[in-house]
Amino acid sequence: MSKTGTPEKAELVDAVAERSGREMLLEAAGELMSELGTIDVSLHQIAKRAGVTAPLVKYHFGSKDGLLLALAQRDTAQSIRQLTELMAMDIDPASKLRIHIQGIIRTYSRYPYLNRLLENFLRESDTDRDGTRSIWSSFMLPLIEAQKQIISDGIAAGQFRSVDSKYAYFLINGACQYIFSTRITVRELVGETKVGQELAREYAAFAAETVLRGIAK
Amino acid sequence: MSKTGTPEKAELVDAVAERSGREMLLEAAGELMSELGTIDVSLHQIAKRAGVTAPLVKYHFGSKDGLLLALAQRDTAQSIRQLTELMAMDIDPASKLRIHIQGIIRTYSRYPYLNRLLENFLRESDTDRDGTRSIWSSFMLPLIEAQKQIISDGIAAGQFRSVDSKYAYFLINGACQYIFSTRITVRELVGETKVGQELAREYAAFAAETVLRGIAK
Repeated sequence: MSKTGTPEKAELVDAVAERSGREMLLEAAGELMSELGTIDVSLHQIAKRAGVTAPLVKYHFGSKDGLLLALAQRDTAQSIRQLTELMAMDIDPASKLRIHIQGIIRTYSRYPYLNRLLENFLRESDTDRDGTRSIWSSFMLPLIEAQKQIISDGIAAGQFRSVDSKYAYFLINGACQYIFSTRITVRELVGETKVGQELAREYAAFAAETVLRGIAK
Repeated sequence: MSKTGTPEKAELVDAVAERSGREMLLEAAGELMSELGTIDVSLHQIAKRAGVTAPLVKYHFGSKDGLLLALAQRDTAQSIRQLTELMAMDIDPASKLRIHIQGIIRTYSRYPYLNRLLENFLRESDTDRDGTRSIWSSFMLPLIEAQKQIISDGIAAGQFRSVDSKYAYFLINGACQYIFSTRITVRELVGETKVGQELAREYAAFAAETVLRGIAK
């Protein structure tokens, strides 16, 4: 029983503490991955960064894979919320697609490790793996469905030529993510060690403009 | 001394045998990776497939990394030869870019493991690693330079709008490779377990057309 009084309140306090413990650990994991430029960080490193013990990390996430999954879910959930809002907006399909493309690139630049994290869950075709199924249904499917809708709305509205939305999906997402997958090329071509905010903004404007011209009627 | 006679001939015969031993092993490694859908095949599996012993694989390539590098070099060398020929052709920049984009996608579809293999060497910014430096200078640099040339020729010829060739690089290569990086999405969207020749051809036509419209003046 806690000093806040009733059992209900005590449970609530425990739940909040539990949640913020998880969030603090995800925050620490994300920071470490961003700084080190890799998703290969140990539970021990994460615990140390968060100022807790490694068993506590295990307690919250079960395993390294559990933590990676929770982090991917946290970062993509925000993205999907924004996409849902975008889909509900009363604007034309071309404008929606422009905002969407810039949103994907902004998300990748905010979480430099996210591309690697998603790859980790989606690279094999093994949907039986827990994380893969979860990321597929909470993130990939809504993303694919939203893009399909925007493309078919754009074709119906006469803004887009009659493209195959599956092919558009592979092109759009490839155009958005490649710059985040190859640190060495970014360094050699742009002279930066990572895709910073300004580079991300400029590239996003270019990518959105090029894709829109590319599929325009 | 060999039964073919002179020492010079014997050396030549040995060199040919050595070369074809290497080639046979690379062939076996490539086949295995294509079939299993992963670059994580052991030297033991490769040896077994080629009908030789694991130490012979070690003898030819030193290590797993050495074999991966040799395979990446073999597959990209052909690609770079074709690109060199393309650059020398007397055709306009837009046609060159179209052929080039279709060539990249054809290469990835011929060697389904190549995307993963290149990623393995290029994902970290660590150019001190032997394989990374080698792939960078034998493949990435010529590719980047050729694309830069086509883009600036196209701008000069009034075919392309004034795009930044660095951004064009990230967009073009992302558009070409993403479909090969996500087997699960290909399966769910297209209903195929891998990007077969027909899908590759159709997607290549779409990607080339879209990029060309996207950067057209």
